[in-house]
Amino acid sequence: MASALSSPLAISLGDPAGIGPEVIAKCWDNRDSFGLPAFVAIGDPRSVAAVWDGPIEVIEDPRQADAAFDYGLPLIQLNAPRPDTPGHPSVAGAHTSLDSLEIAVGLARSGSAAAVVTGPVAKEQLYAIGFTHPGQTEFVAERCGVAPANVVMMLAGPTLRTVPVTTHVPLADVPRQLSSALIESRGRAALRGLQRNFGIIEPRLAVSGLNPHSGEGGELGREEIEMIEPAIAALAAEGWRVSGPHPADTMFHARVRANYDAALCMYHDQALIPIKALHFEEAVNVTLGLPIVRTAPDHGTAFDIAGQDRADPRPMAAAIRMAAENAIQRAEAA
Amino acid sequence: MASALSSPLAISLGDPAGIGPEVIAKCWDNRDSFGLPAFVAIGDPRSVAAVWDGPIEVIEDPRQADAAFDYGLPLIQLNAPRPDTPGHPSVAGAHTSLDSLEIAVGLARSGSAAAVVTGPVAKEQLYAIGFTHPGQTEFVAERCGVAPANVVMMLAGPTLRTVPVTTHVPLADVPRQLSSALIESRGRAALRGLQRNFGIIEPRLAVSGLNPHSGEGGELGREEIEMIEPAIAALAAEGWRVSGPHPADTMFHARVRANYDAALCMYHDQALIPIKALHFEEAVNVTLGLPIVRTAPDHGTAFDIAGQDRADPRPMAAAIRMAAENAIQRAEAA
Repeated sequence: MASALSSPLAISLGDPAGIGPEVIAKCWDNRDSFGLPAFVAIGDPRSVAAVWDGPIEVIEDPRQADAAFDYGLPLIQLNAPRPDTPGHPSVAGAHTSLDSLEIAVGLARSGSAAAVVTGPVAKEQLYAIGFTHPGQTEFVAERCGVAPANVVMMLAGPTLRTVPVTTHVPLADVPRQLSSALIESRGRAALRGLQRNFGIIEPRLAVSGLNPHSGEGGELGREEIEMIEPAIAALAAEGWRVSGPHPADTMFHARVRANYDAALCMYHDQALIPIKALHFEEAVNVTLGLPIVRTAPDHGTAFDIAGQDRADPRPMAAAIRMAAENAIQRAEAA
Repeated sequence: MASALSSPLAISLGDPAGIGPEVIAKCWDNRDSFGLPAFVAIGDPRSVAAVWDGPIEVIEDPRQADAAFDYGLPLIQLNAPRPDTPGHPSVAGAHTSLDSLEIAVGLARSGSAAAVVTGPVAKEQLYAIGFTHPGQTEFVAERCGVAPANVVMMLAGPTLRTVPVTTHVPLADVPRQLSSALIESRGRAALRGLQRNFGIIEPRLAVSGLNPHSGEGGELGREEIEMIEPAIAALAAEGWRVSGPHPADTMFHARVRANYDAALCMYHDQALIPIKALHFEEAVNVTLGLPIVRTAPDHGTAFDIAGQDRADPRPMAAAIRMAAENAIQRAEAA
């Protein structure tokens, strides 16, 4: 896989006190069995050394990553004021995680890195240093000059991809945040992302209903009739292959999943419950709508288990593999 | 398994134009490989004969079912005015399905049947003949002299059981229908059902949050703080083993599921998405809080495929097996 990438992947370590450094180092350990291409980590090497005994190859240019990758974990060093203790996040660590993210995005934008994979950050700490974005996704979008409204989050696993229309809002606010225009634009971004990142020429999008049984013809809610069906019709009129609204409880069965390339879901848990029930260790967060490829493992900093050698590197490995696959896909299409 | 039951299971055929007759007949066909105990179907034999070539043993008393079961599908005959065509429901068929349900419940209440399994009915047709209950569950509750508020629906599969607190209501109404008292009473009914039907002496109940990330400490909604946590505390104060509120997206992973016996979910799709994603062919609807055991396959009449020999009998077989297991469990505890 590595040979098909013209440059290494850039991976931000995430919060130095979280499990990011550990799972990234473990990915290097298992690079062969996980089938990973060359990558370069960006962050404070002390946060890796604190949780891992393997070799770190500090490099200054991503072009050195390929050669260094056989000997140790290639790492572009950030000068953090002091190292964090695993499990004990600090404001200084938040600064380091943000710098690491910024550098990774810059390397991808300039073409020095093939794609960005982001380690988990702690939002609370980031807010404390003046970070005003809801999450890393919006920060990356801004650094890429894309309006946050035009990027979408996709959760992708081996047999299911889901895209939530609304994300981090209270459930009670979901019905009033939904609109035909929003469903349509998220659907369009998902469809374009399936083409661009996954190479699916005629992608099939299955749109969920909001209410039980998709509203049962209006008996159990009218959002399907008033918002979702018009959005589906509008996308279909553009030539996209879109179906629905599907009752959310029956659309994630294996036989049904085989009929679509991604499910457009109305709210956070509708998209995340099925992907995590089916693909907990392999669910990857992919940001669509960016000029660069960006993926992330679908887990947080897990401060409670940081530094205990208990973190599972498989989600990070899945994120790295998918970043490489998407980057190759885009390069081939270009 | 049959030997441990003192009487056969009573199975209502459901709507004669739906897939009920077909899947029940196929269960008799596969009684050995599915591991099914003796049962007696109740309904119009013509609705079975229209979709199945096997032998029907018309009997008059459930006590004859055990002997007849080796030779054909035991069936207590209802005198429907005329047979329905598969896929074409009628008002007459709705009457037959209701009579069949009523007889099955009566047999179980009198002890002539060990439990009731209900075939799928068409609500629209039932409403047309003056049926005023939201579904079969409420009808069964009334016939058993139990207030509908005291029965709960559980979806049970091999590795997950879920209980929705609210059921067939628009998503926008879920937050205002929830209350601590409702969560508490549904939780208590679920816990008692785990003891009574499943023989779990100290059942563990995992309660979901309503909002993304369980509200993130109030940032993404306050129902967790104001309703769910107090309900959990009240149940815990009674000595029950109750945990939560858990973020709904991470609680259905295999490793997490191993920590509880049932998940109490806040709304329909939160309970049904994971069970159907994981256990589509084996998800059983179990009604808890009744003096009798009642189960049902978790699918509808599927008029679109009725009479085409395409219906999958495995959900009905799972419902029959679970009815037998629950009945044995209750008999042993009595």
